[in-house]
Amino acid sequence: MTDEAGKRPVPVVGMVGAGQLARMTGQAAISLGIGFRVLAGSPSDSAAQVCAGVTIGDYTSQADLLAFAAGCDVVTFDHEHVPGGPLATLEQAVAIRPGASALGYTQDKLAMRERLTGLGVPCPRYAPAASLADVTAFAGRTGWPVVLKAVSGGYDGRGVWVCPSPAAAAEVLAHPVSLFAEEHIGFDRELAVLAARSPHRQGAVYPVVQTIQRDGICAEVLAPAPCLPPSRAMQAQRLALELAAELDVTGLLAVELFETAGGGLLVNELAMRPHNSGHWTIEGAVTSQFEQHLRAVLDLPLGASAAAAPQAVMANVLGGADPGVYARYTHVMAADPGLKVHLYGKEVRPGRKIGHVTVLGENVDELRVRAGRAARYLATGED
Amino acid sequence: MTDEAGKRPVPVVGMVGAGQLARMTGQAAISLGIGFRVLAGSPSDSAAQVCAGVTIGDYTSQADLLAFAAGCDVVTFDHEHVPGGPLATLEQAVAIRPGASALGYTQDKLAMRERLTGLGVPCPRYAPAASLADVTAFAGRTGWPVVLKAVSGGYDGRGVWVCPSPAAAAEVLAHPVSLFAEEHIGFDRELAVLAARSPHRQGAVYPVVQTIQRDGICAEVLAPAPCLPPSRAMQAQRLALELAAELDVTGLLAVELFETAGGGLLVNELAMRPHNSGHWTIEGAVTSQFEQHLRAVLDLPLGASAAAAPQAVMANVLGGADPGVYARYTHVMAADPGLKVHLYGKEVRPGRKIGHVTVLGENVDELRVRAGRAARYLATGED
Repeated sequence: MTDEAGKRPVPVVGMVGAGQLARMTGQAAISLGIGFRVLAGSPSDSAAQVCAGVTIGDYTSQADLLAFAAGCDVVTFDHEHVPGGPLATLEQAVAIRPGASALGYTQDKLAMRERLTGLGVPCPRYAPAASLADVTAFAGRTGWPVVLKAVSGGYDGRGVWVCPSPAAAAEVLAHPVSLFAEEHIGFDRELAVLAARSPHRQGAVYPVVQTIQRDGICAEVLAPAPCLPPSRAMQAQRLALELAAELDVTGLLAVELFETAGGGLLVNELAMRPHNSGHWTIEGAVTSQFEQHLRAVLDLPLGASAAAAPQAVMANVLGGADPGVYARYTHVMAADPGLKVHLYGKEVRPGRKIGHVTVLGENVDELRVRAGRAARYLATGED
Repeated sequence: MTDEAGKRPVPVVGMVGAGQLARMTGQAAISLGIGFRVLAGSPSDSAAQVCAGVTIGDYTSQADLLAFAAGCDVVTFDHEHVPGGPLATLEQAVAIRPGASALGYTQDKLAMRERLTGLGVPCPRYAPAASLADVTAFAGRTGWPVVLKAVSGGYDGRGVWVCPSPAAAAEVLAHPVSLFAEEHIGFDRELAVLAARSPHRQGAVYPVVQTIQRDGICAEVLAPAPCLPPSRAMQAQRLALELAAELDVTGLLAVELFETAGGGLLVNELAMRPHNSGHWTIEGAVTSQFEQHLRAVLDLPLGASAAAAPQAVMANVLGGADPGVYARYTHVMAADPGLKVHLYGKEVRPGRKIGHVTVLGENVDELRVRAGRAARYLATGED
C-alpha cells in the first residue's frame, strides 16, 4: 500500500484478532478502499479466510504485536485479551485505538465498576470477593442469589456465575480466579447502546436496542428496542456518549444495560469494539458499526447512525449437532427471499456463534418469527 | 475449503477477472460464507488487493483457466473477454455460468443483434459494414449520423463510433476491426434493467433505472428511473426476464435500453455479469446485484430484488488529475454523513472509474446534487 515515494496513498488499519468481528470489519474496509490487515492465530480463523492481509501470530507476544504493527498506521482490536504489558509497548510504537488506558476498563471489570461508580454512573452494587466471608457479607446486604464475576478472563469459557447459595459461591471461589461479587438485578430486560468516538472527539450514537439472551448467549437483537420511552432512549444514548468521552474511547463503545422494573438503567458490561448487539447495522443503519469503527479509528468524520428501516431484528445462528449449514441454505433462502444471511466460516460446534441473520421491516413480532425460524433452521435443520 | 473427507463443506466460486466487479462480488461472498477466488492479471488488480483467494494468470490462456478452475465448483466472469476456444474447453472441465453459448452474445455484437431480431426484440436497425459502400447504402435508409460498432473488441479502448459523414466512417473502416452499422437513435434517455436467472430457471428482476452518460461513460444512475410509466417499467422488466430465458443466461443479465421520443424501448447492449447500472443495489435493494449473481451461479434461491428506499442515486467517481483521493475523504464525509463511498483501490488515471458513491432518500433532484458533488469532489477536489 505504498507508492513510489514510500508514502502510503491510503492508510492501513490492523486488527488484532481474526474472529467474525474482524471478518465483518474487513468487509467494510473494502468499500472504503483502505488497507486492512488482521493478526490471526491461525489461517483458518474467520477473518483470515477472507482477508488479503493476514499475519499469523500470537496476540500475547510483544514481538508478534510489534512486527504486525510495523505494517499498519493504526491498530485496533477484535477482542480485549491483549495483555497489559505488550499493549503498553505496542502503544509506544503505533497509534492504538482504543488506547491502552481505555481498553484497561474492559480487561479489569472491577476497575471498570470503580471508575463508573466514581463517575456517578448507575451500576449494580458490587464488592471485591476474595473469600466466602466477603460473599456472605455482601449477600447480607443484597440477598441471594449473588453474581460472581471474574475480574479478568474466567474459567471453562465463562466469567459470570449466578450463585443461589453460599455452597455455589464456594465452588466458584475454589478456582484460582480473581473475583468480585455483584448484586443480582431483577431486570425487566436487557438493552444495549453503541456509540462511536473519534480522536477528533466527534461522537455518534445508534438507536438503543433490546438484547435477548438464552443460556447466557445473545440470541436476538431488536433494533430499536420496542416500546422504549424516548426519554429513556435518550438517557441511554447520552450515557454511552458521556462514557465514551470520560473513558477517552476511540472507536466503538458498546454499553450493555439492565432496564429495571422501576424503569431505571444500570450498566452491566462495556466493550470497545464492534459488538454483537450492532450486527443489525450492516443492513439496518445508514452506516454499519464496522464502517463506523474504521472511520473512528482513522479519525475520519463519522457516518450517519440513523436506522434505515423502522425495525430490524437480528438472530444469532448457534452451531447445532449437524455441521452441514450450507446444505440448509436452499430451504432458508427459498422460504424468505428478504432474509440477510451472514455466515462466519467457523467450524460448527454446538452453541458456538457461527453466523447471524437479519430482517428489516415494520412489525417486530413478525420479524422475530422470520429471523428466529431461519436461525434455528440453519443451526439445526429443524423448522 | 475442504473437510477431512476431502468434500467441500461450502462451494467455491471462481471469478475470471479481478476488477471492481470481482472486488464487490468477493465482498458479498464474505456474508454468504462461501469460498471465492479470482483469476487476476496482477496482484495489484482491484479485487486481488482484498480477496484471500487470488490466482495470478492470463484469462486468454487455456492452461491458466483450467488450473484456476480446478480449485472451483463454479466459474463466472467479471468481463466478457475470455476467447471462445479456451471458453469452450473450460466449459468441459467445470460449470461455467453464464455458459459459453450465452456469453457468446456479449462477445459478438452482430450475432447478438441477429438473435434479438430473430426473437422479435425491438433494436435499432443495423447492417454488416465491411466497406464504405455498405455504410453509405445503410445511411441511405437511416440517414447520417451512422453508428459504427466493433463486432468484438475495438481499438483505442473504444468499440462505438458515431460517424456524422462518409469521411468519418472511412476513417473507422481503415482500422482492421470487424464492424457493423447501426441506426443513430434520437433517444429521450437511456434506461437499464437487471435480471437474474438461476440454472433452476428461477428469475428475479430489479427496478428499471435511468443511466446518464457523459463523454460515453456512465456518470449517474437513478433508481428507479424517474417518472417511468409503470406499464413501460413492466415492459422493460419482462423483456429482461424473457431475454435471460431465451439466451439461457445463468447469473445476471443487464439490458441497456434507449427510451425513444415516441415512448418505445430499443435494446442497446447486453452484459451478463454485475453491471455499473446495478451498483446502487448494494445499499438500495434488499439483495445486492453481487449477492444475487452469486446466488444465481450457485443455483441458490434468488433474493428479493425490491428497493430498500424510495429513491437511490449512484454517481461514478472518475479519476482526475490529482491521485490523492483519500485525502479528500475528510471533507466529503463531513459534508454528507449519509453518503456511501466505495473506492476500488485502482490507480488513478483521468477518466477512469475508480469508485462510486450512493445516496438513498426521497427526492431525486436533491440526491443527484449530493451524489454528484461528492463524486466530483473526490475526483478533482473541486466543490
